[in-house]
Amino acid sequence: MNTRIYNARILTMEPGQEIFEGEVQIRGDRIAYVGPAVIQNLTRKETIRNSSIWDREIDAQKNLVMPGFKNAHTHSAMVFLRSFADDLPLDRWLNQKVFPMEKKLTGDDIYQLSMLAIMEYLTSGITANFDMYLDPDQVAQASLDAGFRTVICGAMNDFTHSPKQQEQWYLKYRDSKSLVTYQLGFHAEYTTSREKLEQIAALSHKYHAPVFTHSSETRGEVKGCIERYGCTPTGLFEKLGLLEYGGGCFHCVHMTEEDLAIMQRRKIAAITCPASNLKLASGIADVRQLLNHRICVGIGTDGAASNNCLDMFREMFLVSGLAKIKAEDAVAVDAQEVLRMATCQGAHVMQLFDADVLAEQKKADLILIDLQQPNMQPIHNISKNLVYSGSKSDVKLTMVDGKILYEDGVFDIGVSKEEVYENVQRVVQRLQQ
Amino acid sequence: MNTRIYNARILTMEPGQEIFEGEVQIRGDRIAYVGPAVIQNLTRKETIRNSSIWDREIDAQKNLVMPGFKNAHTHSAMVFLRSFADDLPLDRWLNQKVFPMEKKLTGDDIYQLSMLAIMEYLTSGITANFDMYLDPDQVAQASLDAGFRTVICGAMNDFTHSPKQQEQWYLKYRDSKSLVTYQLGFHAEYTTSREKLEQIAALSHKYHAPVFTHSSETRGEVKGCIERYGCTPTGLFEKLGLLEYGGGCFHCVHMTEEDLAIMQRRKIAAITCPASNLKLASGIADVRQLLNHRICVGIGTDGAASNNCLDMFREMFLVSGLAKIKAEDAVAVDAQEVLRMATCQGAHVMQLFDADVLAEQKKADLILIDLQQPNMQPIHNISKNLVYSGSKSDVKLTMVDGKILYEDGVFDIGVSKEEVYENVQRVVQRLQQ
Repeated sequence: MNTRIYNARILTMEPGQEIFEGEVQIRGDRIAYVGPAVIQNLTRKETIRNSSIWDREIDAQKNLVMPGFKNAHTHSAMVFLRSFADDLPLDRWLNQKVFPMEKKLTGDDIYQLSMLAIMEYLTSGITANFDMYLDPDQVAQASLDAGFRTVICGAMNDFTHSPKQQEQWYLKYRDSKSLVTYQLGFHAEYTTSREKLEQIAALSHKYHAPVFTHSSETRGEVKGCIERYGCTPTGLFEKLGLLEYGGGCFHCVHMTEEDLAIMQRRKIAAITCPASNLKLASGIADVRQLLNHRICVGIGTDGAASNNCLDMFREMFLVSGLAKIKAEDAVAVDAQEVLRMATCQGAHVMQLFDADVLAEQKKADLILIDLQQPNMQPIHNISKNLVYSGSKSDVKLTMVDGKILYEDGVFDIGVSKEEVYENVQRVVQRLQQ
Repeated sequence: MNTRIYNARILTMEPGQEIFEGEVQIRGDRIAYVGPAVIQNLTRKETIRNSSIWDREIDAQKNLVMPGFKNAHTHSAMVFLRSFADDLPLDRWLNQKVFPMEKKLTGDDIYQLSMLAIMEYLTSGITANFDMYLDPDQVAQASLDAGFRTVICGAMNDFTHSPKQQEQWYLKYRDSKSLVTYQLGFHAEYTTSREKLEQIAALSHKYHAPVFTHSSETRGEVKGCIERYGCTPTGLFEKLGLLEYGGGCFHCVHMTEEDLAIMQRRKIAAITCPASNLKLASGIADVRQLLNHRICVGIGTDGAASNNCLDMFREMFLVSGLAKIKAEDAVAVDAQEVLRMATCQGAHVMQLFDADVLAEQKKADLILIDLQQPNMQPIHNISKNLVYSGSKSDVKLTMVDGKILYEDGVFDIGVSKEEVYENVQRVVQRLQQ
């Protein structure tokens, strides 16, 4: 599939690059050209000849083409808990609601639920997710069937996968040239024994692989870790050798100066999940401080059970607004920094180095944003509009790996939305019995 | 115009009323019936005869009909500052950006800018706004031309309207049976001399009229008031007799126990504007505490200059999420309470007592929410879905005063969206010169 999107405003997210007018050409799964309009002053005959190489030519009508958003922390299949387990603190929410329901999940359930989440990602302009959940093969299959890009994050803890299983999945997906890849990870310190943590560290050393985990999400978690080990989660991970090949920590709400120094030294990324942290009353991450330590920051929606929306526009506004409140400074963390977190930095966190910006030979993971919506008018500063007044209702088109999966409210993911909704409703009814 | 919306789920927002399936009938500007399906088991002939009384019959396809949202604090015409004056604290933002640009505004500018804001309200399911700005006649004209409901709030301060002008506007609009009404108000303590405050108090006493104003938005504002008068803004308003006939305070971020007690005793409403308070780093209002004092709380977007989005879904999530963070309690302020603030309580703040819930003889200000969107699936608890995962992209239809002004992305407001955008862009370019 070769697509040309012309008459567009283009935000490449390349460092220092301003928005310009031009076109994007996509051949197969990659971007073949990004720049000023190529076809100009052609005769009608030449235009027709030239057109024949395109399966589709889209007049963007001066709307904005930009890289798709990267959802750098989520649990897709947790959509089954949307509006089911609200208004609870994290510990009761996990132990009384999440874990008992999860025990009943089958592999097919996880496939169906992941498909619903993928649909929601597409409506919000998200082109890749970093998914930590049970049954990676089902998560992978949903993404492959839908045509969506997923990096699976190991989800080991004392109740789920063994290190051996994780190694098998890692080897199966790590060198994949397809839409699905895999990174080592574990759920969290408070759900994973020291022995298992050491086994993950051994895997990391064996493959020189980064490791990802939840860390310092709540005050109670940090307190518990100090009681158990005499140090913070970040301190413990450092001690156990879990941070030697990079990786990232999800949440990073309650951090000490020493934690930040370790992350900076080890080049560990932080993934902030502001809506989830608000809804579970976990706290406000100090994103300005993370950036000051030159830590690479991505943005995650977390799962629908705790957010409850998989919407990168809401997260972007929150990242900026909460950083300002936390720092008591309206200048803290501006729109441009937030856009980088939501796109190229998120891609780097997820090790998707060829799906970060719009440039030749990069993966064609991009979105078209409708600027002809009242919330995007007047047009002063499009980057600020995106972060401060943008909405998923502005997403006209979402393309992953060169294929348009969502356009003007219609999905092209190999299954009808009605079928997905019915399947999910059936799963949810069974789980509640 | 008589409209019947059938095969709907209905959320009336009447106290204690659950969502049920049925229909809503609208005759002219009022609701004629809300309840279970009326037309059942009719012969085809009878159905045709019955149909003839309807100009339009809408099959809601089990989607949700509910009261429109009430934007209880905004400055519509400030859309001209969207993405123009960001990342600044309130005092510099007002004095260096807002006030100098505002000086250049003409009446026609305010009309055009208000029209853009009305379009944005409609996309977000907002059916009425409480608008504090310059030139009430232009604001009123935009609403009348678009068919939108606006309560104008007096915006007096030392640089704008005189009390005499305010009295004239009050008398012109207060008993209006049209879409536009008027309430007494002033900008804030810190922009209004004691003499003028006393004149507003005299007007309030003369007409037994409630008074509305910005109050306790920033720490600096409260500190300044204490330096000038030896008491908080709320304390000062009480002293000057401004609160004797009710009214409301916009923001209420930095409140003392005594302030809360005054508001409770005087039945003064609080209007919370969470996105604006984040973006200007003003602070987090303690909405749980306001509710504990039985203060009626409405929700406002504030103007686009400080938000920058006029989106009630974003505000609803923030009201709940920020209340949880402020109270460090994931149970603080639940979805049902937030929905009441955004609909019926907002209407009561704005003195729109016949546009608060869906019931016979109430104004037909309602919206249709698409539940067939991924973010609204699965369907466990629709109220929670609305607050925690709802989005303006779910708004299928917005009806004000019995007339459909927005449906499936298309506006019916007497002017094309392209024309509004062009007009606004022209205004903005001139103001920047």
